[in-house]
Amino acid sequence: MPQFDFDFLCIGSGPAGQRAAVQSAKLGKRAALVERCRTLGGVCLDTGTIPSKTFREAVMYFAGPASREERRRRRANRPSMAELLGRVTEVVEREAEVLDDQLRRNRVTLLHGDASFVDAHTVQVRGPEGWRSVTAANVLVACGTVPAPPPGIEAGSDVILTSDQIPHMKALPRTLAVVGGGVIGLEYASMFAALGVEVTVVDKRLRPLEFLDHEILDEMIHLMRGRRVTFRLGEAVERMEVLEDPTPRAVIGLESGKRIVADAVLFSVGRIPATAALHLEKAGVPTDERGRLTVDGEFRTRVPHIFAAGDVIGYPSLAATSSEQGKLAARFAFGAPTRPMASHFPIGIYSIPEVSMVGEPEHRLTEQKIPYETGIARYREIARGQILGDETGLFTMIFHRETRRLLGVHAVGTGATELIHVGQAVYGLGGGLDYFLETVFNYPTLAECYKVAAYDASNKMVA
Amino acid sequence: MPQFDFDFLCIGSGPAGQRAAVQSAKLGKRAALVERCRTLGGVCLDTGTIPSKTFREAVMYFAGPASREERRRRRANRPSMAELLGRVTEVVEREAEVLDDQLRRNRVTLLHGDASFVDAHTVQVRGPEGWRSVTAANVLVACGTVPAPPPGIEAGSDVILTSDQIPHMKALPRTLAVVGGGVIGLEYASMFAALGVEVTVVDKRLRPLEFLDHEILDEMIHLMRGRRVTFRLGEAVERMEVLEDPTPRAVIGLESGKRIVADAVLFSVGRIPATAALHLEKAGVPTDERGRLTVDGEFRTRVPHIFAAGDVIGYPSLAATSSEQGKLAARFAFGAPTRPMASHFPIGIYSIPEVSMVGEPEHRLTEQKIPYETGIARYREIARGQILGDETGLFTMIFHRETRRLLGVHAVGTGATELIHVGQAVYGLGGGLDYFLETVFNYPTLAECYKVAAYDASNKMVA
Repeated sequence: MPQFDFDFLCIGSGPAGQRAAVQSAKLGKRAALVERCRTLGGVCLDTGTIPSKTFREAVMYFAGPASREERRRRRANRPSMAELLGRVTEVVEREAEVLDDQLRRNRVTLLHGDASFVDAHTVQVRGPEGWRSVTAANVLVACGTVPAPPPGIEAGSDVILTSDQIPHMKALPRTLAVVGGGVIGLEYASMFAALGVEVTVVDKRLRPLEFLDHEILDEMIHLMRGRRVTFRLGEAVERMEVLEDPTPRAVIGLESGKRIVADAVLFSVGRIPATAALHLEKAGVPTDERGRLTVDGEFRTRVPHIFAAGDVIGYPSLAATSSEQGKLAARFAFGAPTRPMASHFPIGIYSIPEVSMVGEPEHRLTEQKIPYETGIARYREIARGQILGDETGLFTMIFHRETRRLLGVHAVGTGATELIHVGQAVYGLGGGLDYFLETVFNYPTLAECYKVAAYDASNKMVA
Repeated sequence: MPQFDFDFLCIGSGPAGQRAAVQSAKLGKRAALVERCRTLGGVCLDTGTIPSKTFREAVMYFAGPASREERRRRRANRPSMAELLGRVTEVVEREAEVLDDQLRRNRVTLLHGDASFVDAHTVQVRGPEGWRSVTAANVLVACGTVPAPPPGIEAGSDVILTSDQIPHMKALPRTLAVVGGGVIGLEYASMFAALGVEVTVVDKRLRPLEFLDHEILDEMIHLMRGRRVTFRLGEAVERMEVLEDPTPRAVIGLESGKRIVADAVLFSVGRIPATAALHLEKAGVPTDERGRLTVDGEFRTRVPHIFAAGDVIGYPSLAATSSEQGKLAARFAFGAPTRPMASHFPIGIYSIPEVSMVGEPEHRLTEQKIPYETGIARYREIARGQILGDETGLFTMIFHRETRRLLGVHAVGTGATELIHVGQAVYGLGGGLDYFLETVFNYPTLAECYKVAAYDASNKMVA
């Protein structure tokens, strides 16, 4: 009889947990997945990635590139929130089915309830039908995060929201304040702005999304301003209150003395690990001051058989990277041959327009004193951009001036999150400028940006 | 004084000619471009690639993936041909400007008129203002092709059309017969079918587009049948006539005895080189029985200083490859360091849905007895497919069973012509299965197909 109930117990069924469980099962191990919500998939499926991207798709239909005439027609038929959220449930249910199917096929045991550690190998699961203790040789903490609550005021009304409430909004506000210009804040800010909502973004930092290439971020902010978004950067919120009369609205006081009045506030100042109820201390696993777990290159916490992956370990906190982390954790746990996490993962921001990158931004290369040259392509200069009606897309590549290796690709525009993968492959496989100069791309496609930017860089490098 | 008026004279301003002229200029040579139409750009810009892709974009807006409710709404507002063609002029003019700009910037001399050889170094240009003889050290024949005319009947009415007439169609027909199931025929057949036109495709071959992977072609035909396209394959046209009473319509008699009656016929049985007026014989350049020019690996005809590129030399006859051929011809002409044409060029078919490929199809690998394994992904199984509402997309990758190298990528579905470039980079740089297994893609994107298909192939290769 085995010593433990399971070989790998994953807490949380988001991308990290589900993938770790499936990978364990594929390695012939007995895997279990604990989920406290009724539906599987974690934040990704419930209120995060999938709902927001489905919502975005609906917004794009109304706000995407189109002829002038077409744009007029769309403005005359402004959609309701119910219409915009119409497909969310459909897509979420379908994705949950796909996931459920995959777990069953791989014989992963599902445990419904709240998990908490009893000791380093024992986890108690409190479900609707009572308590159960399970033991496991290895445990993965992939419990995800929750939105940081707004200070001194309750979120959840139709006025003060966190991203969790967006999929349940009843009406499209006329004005929206977004407090916190991180990925989630700017994604929603740009979506609502595209729908004609007057949006104000407040952020403490003078430059949000500091990992982005500055030129791309500047362009993104420029485009959002073009949709009448007001940026209040380097500004801190002092207080927030809800006035009910004559209609419910929020008033935000900034430390600088400014006031912002808005029909709704999206509070998106970071997310905090959902570790509070886990009793990690009983397993001997420490957390940092923000409740986050620190892991080594094999995703092991201080307790070697307890792993952590996904949002709970911090940057980049993207569904795709979390899934990969979960897979790797399982492989390391069972000593399967595994290379460390590839460094060529992309970043995708589903704002309108999309932003994506792989490799290094210019300012980081400058800091590292790496000599480089950039090549630029603008969507309005390529046929596909013209056909799409996207006149604003901007695409840059960075090459090493001596080795001609590709160092980074940065894009803001239609399809950027897809387009980046071409550069990612060249970057990941060690290719460079000559690949792009010698390669034929389908015409007309946005991939022509690679050709145009490569020529631009090549022209500069001759000098 | 130099011996010749120009170092490189390019006949035709389509993708091959324009690119050859610009490349020559960049190498410091005196380049000239002869164009007989008023606008630059050749067929690509005038009646081919750009108009058809702009038209397609308008069709997609009405017929692309959408929720059921949305589809109902669109059907109720069936667009007119004028609306569908509305943006064509706009995009064509803008692209012509970009091209004109580029030629001016590079100081390429433009000669308007019909070119014909006087001898191997002399070309006569007959323009609106008279005749002019110019001499050149090197000449590029990039005169393109024209649609083969329907036998025994005049094209150009609103009933019998070639692809040249599509951008000038007055009304959307109720029924359309497409004679010739090549790329152009199937692109338009699928576009009109997506608009609700009843389409019949006739082709002599039992399997059109023989260069495509069979599974992808089968799926494409299946999807077109789902839009009520009738395929008459292995059937030859015996005669075509136009009946005027009570309304103009075409009657096509097939050799098998079947009759097809349609409001309009698109005759798309190949294209023939536009070489007739060039008097190639005076330059000593032979053509094959179809009027095509044969070239060597440096794009030289039998007369070494006379090059040919683009549609006039045959397969693949795509704007992107033609442009590359033009560039290479110029580089070879002036002895600039140049590698031969890369073999990893993609094929893109802008049907609805799009089809694209790079590398080899399954049947060619089987013929060559190369042991392979395939990996499959279906759009309906990936989140981005769900969000887009594309349930039918099909994506396959082929890997060498022993070396795990990528041998081919084949896709039919939304965005296939863009998506293929990721596989193209891996194929071109010699990567394989492990690249896809170890790489994180933005989520949700269609690029997830690469991951899913790689896992599928990997699972099969274990066995």
